Amino acid sequence: MAKPPQHAIQPTRSDDYPEWYQQVVRAADLAEISPVRGCMVIKPWGYSIWENMQQALDGMFKATGHVNAYFPLFIPMSYLEKEAAHVEGFAKECAVVTHHRLEPDGEGGLRPAGPLEEPLIVRPTSETIIGEMYAKWIQSYRDLPILINQWANVVRWEMRTRLFLRTAEFLWQEGHTAHATQEEAEEETRKMLEVYADFAENWMAMPVIKGEKTAEERFPGAVATYSIEAMMQDRKALQAGTSHFLGQNFSRAQEIKFQDENGSEAYAWTTSWGVSTRLVGGLIMTHGDDDGMIVPPRLAPQHVVIIPVLRGDDTTTLVMEYCEKLKASLEGETFNGAPVRVMLDRRDIRGGEKTWQHIKKGVPLRVEIGPRDVESDSCFVGRRDQPPKQKQSIPRKDFVGTIADQLESIQQELFNRALTSREQVTRQIDTLDEFRDFFTADKANPSAIHGGFAHCHFAEGEQMESVLKELKVSLRCIPLDAEEEDGKCIFSNQPSRTRAVFAKAY
Amino acid sequence: MAKPPQHAIQPTRSDDYPEWYQQVVRAADLAEISPVRGCMVIKPWGYSIWENMQQALDGMFKATGHVNAYFPLFIPMSYLEKEAAHVEGFAKECAVVTHHRLEPDGEGGLRPAGPLEEPLIVRPTSETIIGEMYAKWIQSYRDLPILINQWANVVRWEMRTRLFLRTAEFLWQEGHTAHATQEEAEEETRKMLEVYADFAENWMAMPVIKGEKTAEERFPGAVATYSIEAMMQDRKALQAGTSHFLGQNFSRAQEIKFQDENGSEAYAWTTSWGVSTRLVGGLIMTHGDDDGMIVPPRLAPQHVVIIPVLRGDDTTTLVMEYCEKLKASLEGETFNGAPVRVMLDRRDIRGGEKTWQHIKKGVPLRVEIGPRDVESDSCFVGRRDQPPKQKQSIPRKDFVGTIADQLESIQQELFNRALTSREQVTRQIDTLDEFRDFFTADKANPSAIHGGFAHCHFAEGEQMESVLKELKVSLRCIPLDAEEEDGKCIFSNQPSRTRAVFAKAY
Repeated sequence: MAKPPQHAIQPTRSDDYPEWYQQVVRAADLAEISPVRGCMVIKPWGYSIWENMQQALDGMFKATGHVNAYFPLFIPMSYLEKEAAHVEGFAKECAVVTHHRLEPDGEGGLRPAGPLEEPLIVRPTSETIIGEMYAKWIQSYRDLPILINQWANVVRWEMRTRLFLRTAEFLWQEGHTAHATQEEAEEETRKMLEVYADFAENWMAMPVIKGEKTAEERFPGAVATYSIEAMMQDRKALQAGTSHFLGQNFSRAQEIKFQDENGSEAYAWTTSWGVSTRLVGGLIMTHGDDDGMIVPPRLAPQHVVIIPVLRGDDTTTLVMEYCEKLKASLEGETFNGAPVRVMLDRRDIRGGEKTWQHIKKGVPLRVEIGPRDVESDSCFVGRRDQPPKQKQSIPRKDFVGTIADQLESIQQELFNRALTSREQVTRQIDTLDEFRDFFTADKANPSAIHGGFAHCHFAEGEQMESVLKELKVSLRCIPLDAEEEDGKCIFSNQPSRTRAVFAKAY
Repeated sequence: MAKPPQHAIQPTRSDDYPEWYQQVVRAADLAEISPVRGCMVIKPWGYSIWENMQQALDGMFKATGHVNAYFPLFIPMSYLEKEAAHVEGFAKECAVVTHHRLEPDGEGGLRPAGPLEEPLIVRPTSETIIGEMYAKWIQSYRDLPILINQWANVVRWEMRTRLFLRTAEFLWQEGHTAHATQEEAEEETRKMLEVYADFAENWMAMPVIKGEKTAEERFPGAVATYSIEAMMQDRKALQAGTSHFLGQNFSRAQEIKFQDENGSEAYAWTTSWGVSTRLVGGLIMTHGDDDGMIVPPRLAPQHVVIIPVLRGDDTTTLVMEYCEKLKASLEGETFNGAPVRVMLDRRDIRGGEKTWQHIKKGVPLRVEIGPRDVESDSCFVGRRDQPPKQKQSIPRKDFVGTIADQLESIQQELFNRALTSREQVTRQIDTLDEFRDFFTADKANPSAIHGGFAHCHFAEGEQMESVLKELKVSLRCIPLDAEEEDGKCIFSNQPSRTRAVFAKAY
């Protein structure tokens, strides 16, 4: 067996984080670039993680009273024109369908034919098409609230794409709700932010800051945008989910009206909220290490992989039988309310190569079984949150009996680790010099990772904007749990009552 | 309470079947036409049925070794050109993306801008884009088989659309597999046909004929196409799922090559197979009656609806408490391996209206609970496979204790009924006159439903084609279980060894 390299992923995180990311996506077989500009192919391991995310989120949406439905992929161009800020936000990057067939071009190829009367936009988000339907469905206060979610693909013609983080097509869910009162719509907006935070922290093991965006960073057409912000290992923030209170902006633009209890006509109050396959990117960048992906157990397609270590002699049958039995007994146990997911890797390739594949994919627990383990009725176990060579022999019965605890412990460890990482790069900053310093690379060591979350007093305005632009930093959000305190904006010296959190971001 | 009409759906099936279908889709709140040409909005009740179909099928796909992945929505125009029959099949009806942004048109509106170098097609099916990836992924026989399924939306620019049955955009799954040998690929093709037949019969309660398509009806580019064919209540067939053996046609067009065990280069053998939201249409047309939809219990979003019948007096609390308890105890029971799904309809609308809504939606079991039912500790139960007024009082304990049996009995009854219906309209036909007669409307009663499945000896050729065209009949398939027997083609008198099944079709 060839000696494995010191780290399975080259370059390492500290060498070159962006390239490390691409290499993890490749090594873990999560996704790859497709021949179609900006679109990715999500490979089975990556898709399976997304399926687990979907299932968890879908359960949470349903538990909070939502139902799923499906709306058209296409949006008539004229719909986008209805909400001014909205068109401004999306018109510059959308796929436009102009024809409905192909015909021979006379040179052996094809050309578009059958021009459409009105061009169609491939949905970049569905407020306008869904709002159009809601306007039909909602007549009376009795028709409210409408609490609908959609799982769908959307397209935004990004010029610079990165697998999972920013692609022209991505998969997501978009919730769209309509309410009779402002209070109820605001409550819904915050409730869904809580759902996202709960999911991020308890399923993804990714700590997040819940906060409100400033006007500058709002969703096009929203009255208020809330987000959850996570900190990646390269000290950049990732916006991991957003929830928008749309006020009556869309309902006025689209005539979503109803008769209230007093018989008067009123516009509905709407919300929208979404998370996307970008979360898979967040998972990689939160937990991955220099050996590849680490999948938190609650989202792992496989919790345990069993790797038979065969000598090619007469012990093979014995080892394989032991592995099969082990698999069955592990599958009889439950973790997080469902049977433990176990893969027995029967492939005829070398054990070392096999083991490294599963390390790179981030399977939480690896069990190597050779003739000696069978003899001692034990399991040789490696935890993905520990170094690859730190393995331990555990009596089979103990291993099987405590499997849920072990998985839970990995889940918890990943969260704690991410939280510690975040705390290490979080500063309360009170001067512009310190702020500049925090977000400026070390001249002696320009490739060294720097920055993080800076909590600062602020006042929106040109002075702040110009510094942020210069440093390529953004105001991520005003944390919901920010305490009121007297302070001065570090950019303008104006009085400030609360701190916002700043970071470089994806 | 207004007396309900004799039938909840007008017109009835025998009055005007196509219009009855539209009215059921509306009355059951399954879907509606969207403002986007040819695209539908799948409403929560309809989508929930589709989700249940997805879940069942997905489990069957995984149990047969498949994994899910996701490929791009767009296909470069040049890809379609690679497989000649394939482009012929799809070029005439596809959405073509030609621009990637919108700009102001100078008159307050927008116009497409940013022309693409190469137009993109919104996938009508994904053989070409998936094949392109497989060509990269497959190097050696060790990389085979690849067994991938995708859940996705696809677009085919149909000019005449009908909700669920034929829409420009629809949801489906498409399996795409690649194998080292012809035998293995053929086995896969037939295995997935069996999965579809199993699903249709055991989940949808819809009997199907499994068979092979003739050359004329094959998927564009396939060597062999198999389908499952169901009989609707208007005596028209519905193709409910297809499985294609693609031979090496696509692998040659796309260079999907591998080194076999002997080190020689070989083209892979590929298959594809799919079912779509069309199945929801099949469900309606197989089981629906003149009061609306009937959802087979295994696919029903709700198995039981509890409808409190309140007098507006002091018995209200008592009734509601009884209903809540009943709901909880029903949910403690299991059906088909999962908890019984129960809805307690707490809405403040009249009991009669409520009951009829659930009848139209096709909920398998309705339980009305009034003060007298509480007093006698019983349930007043209506089964959706029986007339609306045929209800019976059942002691609560018996009702709860036998809930799984009752649901299973409805499932079985629906299948039996559909099978009987199909048998009643199935003929073995041996003369052209009889064939014409079978498929020609009664002049005295031209709107009367006629036709069905005709099993006939046949020989492909112009004589057959011209009769079929004239009668608007198609050869559905050659049943896999057709026995060999000597016969003569009813169209041409040529010798024939097996019967095909003919029908008018959707």
